[in-house]
Amino acid sequence: MLGECLENVRNTVPLVHNITNYVTVNDVANVLLACGGSPIMSDEPEDVEDITSICGGLNINIGTLNQSSIKGMFLSGKKANELGHMVLLDPVGAGASALRTGTALKLMEEIRFTVIRGNISEIKTLALGSGTTKGVDADLSDAVTEDTLDTAIAFVKDFAKKTGAVIAVTGAIDLVSDSERCYVIRNGRPEMGKITGTGCQLSGMMTAFLVANPDELLEGAAAAVCTMGLAGEIAWDHMKPEDGNSTYRNRIIDAIYNMDRDTLDKGAKYEVR
Amino acid sequence: MLGECLENVRNTVPLVHNITNYVTVNDVANVLLACGGSPIMSDEPEDVEDITSICGGLNINIGTLNQSSIKGMFLSGKKANELGHMVLLDPVGAGASALRTGTALKLMEEIRFTVIRGNISEIKTLALGSGTTKGVDADLSDAVTEDTLDTAIAFVKDFAKKTGAVIAVTGAIDLVSDSERCYVIRNGRPEMGKITGTGCQLSGMMTAFLVANPDELLEGAAAAVCTMGLAGEIAWDHMKPEDGNSTYRNRIIDAIYNMDRDTLDKGAKYEVR
Amino acid sequence: MLGECLENVRNTVPLVHNITNYVTVNDVANVLLACGGSPIMSDEPEDVEDITSICGGLNINIGTLNQSSIKGMFLSGKKANELGHMVLLDPVGAGASALRTGTALKLMEEIRFTVIRGNISEIKTLALGSGTTKGVDADLSDAVTEDTLDTAIAFVKDFAKKTGAVIAVTGAIDLVSDSERCYVIRNGRPEMGKITGTGCQLSGMMTAFLVANPDELLEGAAAAVCTMGLAGEIAWDHMKPEDGNSTYRNRIIDAIYNMDRDTLDKGAKYEVR
Repeated sequence: MLGECLENVRNTVPLVHNITNYVTVNDVANVLLACGGSPIMSDEPEDVEDITSICGGLNINIGTLNQSSIKGMFLSGKKANELGHMVLLDPVGAGASALRTGTALKLMEEIRFTVIRGNISEIKTLALGSGTTKGVDADLSDAVTEDTLDTAIAFVKDFAKKTGAVIAVTGAIDLVSDSERCYVIRNGRPEMGKITGTGCQLSGMMTAFLVANPDELLEGAAAAVCTMGLAGEIAWDHMKPEDGNSTYRNRIIDAIYNMDRDTLDKGAKYEVR
Repeated sequence: MLGECLENVRNTVPLVHNITNYVTVNDVANVLLACGGSPIMSDEPEDVEDITSICGGLNINIGTLNQSSIKGMFLSGKKANELGHMVLLDPVGAGASALRTGTALKLMEEIRFTVIRGNISEIKTLALGSGTTKGVDADLSDAVTEDTLDTAIAFVKDFAKKTGAVIAVTGAIDLVSDSERCYVIRNGRPEMGKITGTGCQLSGMMTAFLVANPDELLEGAAAAVCTMGLAGEIAWDHMKPEDGNSTYRNRIIDAIYNMDRDTLDKGAKYEVR
Repeated sequence: MLGECLENVRNTVPLVHNITNYVTVNDVANVLLACGGSPIMSDEPEDVEDITSICGGLNINIGTLNQSSIKGMFLSGKKANELGHMVLLDPVGAGASALRTGTALKLMEEIRFTVIRGNISEIKTLALGSGTTKGVDADLSDAVTEDTLDTAIAFVKDFAKKTGAVIAVTGAIDLVSDSERCYVIRNGRPEMGKITGTGCQLSGMMTAFLVANPDELLEGAAAAVCTMGLAGEIAWDHMKPEDGNSTYRNRIIDAIYNMDRDTLDKGAKYEVR
């Protein structure tokens, strides 16, 4: 099932418009190519509507936002909505500054998102309308663990219902829900947190999965999460003692490049609740 | 001959000013260092004229252009023209949006370019004044193949004549022409298309080759194309089964770093038509 | 001693706000993660004060500055001063343009820097108020060598006294001084100059070392310099004949990721003058 979602990406080569931060943008582009999609980046207000129009999906990531790119986010988001395109929000650092929190909330008011993907602290900030995110990583006190799993699933389902979007909360345990069902995913490795931008990469890749699987959005989003986590596991198996986070970054993208349907179907670790 | 062009880069360490997109800028800088040049990046209008003045060449790449960087492109381009510096245009995504097409055409009106380098769809857009580029990759229907080669060569020679610039169209078969002669280059591998920014990297490197070979611009441009393509071939030979596009990216830059005159002269695959 | 400084970073995971150039920003983030810190990037004036407030240190790097990010530098720098945070200035390209020189000098007037770190040409530009830096690399005529070492140490001590900041001048021989004492460091390899942004990476990492070692600022800054240089040596030992500057970049970050107290204490090559 999830393997088929990946195959659909490779067969249709979805073009994804990314308004994303300049920290991890190169990795986002290479991950999109690795999974079978095609990336294009543009944040200039005068440029974004044309670019969104030729794409199948739009990935809005608010890391390193600025006044100009914020305008670009609203313009392209509305255009994508008009055209019925997939639109993903990655609220990087929501809760860490008033501008980031406010921009994310306003985007949610004015644009219908297909998926909202973030860490638990960012998603809680959006649900509560304010937050105390410490930088771009989740607060430890927010973490989804086996102990807090039931509560977290209920929270994610509820927020999916309120927003009408698929909600993807990623961390040690990942949750992906459309309000009815929740994928609880246990792929990945903790060392992935030592690489900048694995979340941003996932958001870009997930947008391609949505475009390629328009009738199975929940499965498409879950398949992207499993692909990233499983790639992290496969990549780790190729690490040598002298390797570190920079080589690990490359090996994860490589593992996505080499991922196929069978490998994903066999390696995906999830239950549906 | 082409190997000598590379050696001239290594011997003179040309300083190249790049106004380029934030997606692939790091790779552009590392490729410039790998081939023996020295990169500096600046797009702020108040900064660009000073920076251009201390450089030997200017590489203008319109990917992720914005209102401020567009001003920077015109200011630095005019300053570079005044100073007699090499100026290269990489019209990333021309044809994909009105802003990109319009900016590229206006740059061509106001600035004399030494070389214009892009994929076939982008270059056709510039020649026709409009286009339908799908994102940042060439349309399949435009591709230069053995079947369309004669027509493509005639087109490139004609556009070189009209613009007064060396025209470099890169793809499966690369064409580099100064209107009289056309290098038809068959280096490279299709997998290079799975790495973001090999075109941008080539534009940065080519600018260094122009600065280092002012009396042999056509050969300099062709040598840069062969260096990139041959590096793609050498890098591929070092790939292991678990490697993918991220490792391939690193290996291509590594292969440029290790390229020498003899390797290039022996490995370059071209005919002059 | 220096190894303890590294251990303090790993034990406290300092959050560092970076306003840095878009060329090397991804590597800065990964190096900060590799050494045990946590990076966040933000340059938008409306965002920077909130982001600085949740961090322990601020790294201001003027490469690819623009009108908006310059405002962000002043706002965040003043906020960091108010809060008693560590603030580092990396004056990339000071001397190469009026805007860069002027911005760096004005930042020094209005903000108290804990450390100023640059190459010798950049630092001389700041000391003299003007300069002739050729791009982003140091002029050969300025280089700190065994012959010019005494003069250079006196210059650095004097500039540290005048500014009240720790001054770190990096090159073939690195000097780190607080006016009383000067660490003369001989780690590193010349091939590091063939990678874009090793200086930027060092500035990001050094800021984390300052935050984690508030009572030993000179030692903290020197430990960061030794960590980067030693990582360059260790990484070089893992290079194969086909490897080049791109793989070397990855291996250096990997070596920082794997650096521990003992390795640093044994490998650090310095004298205090």
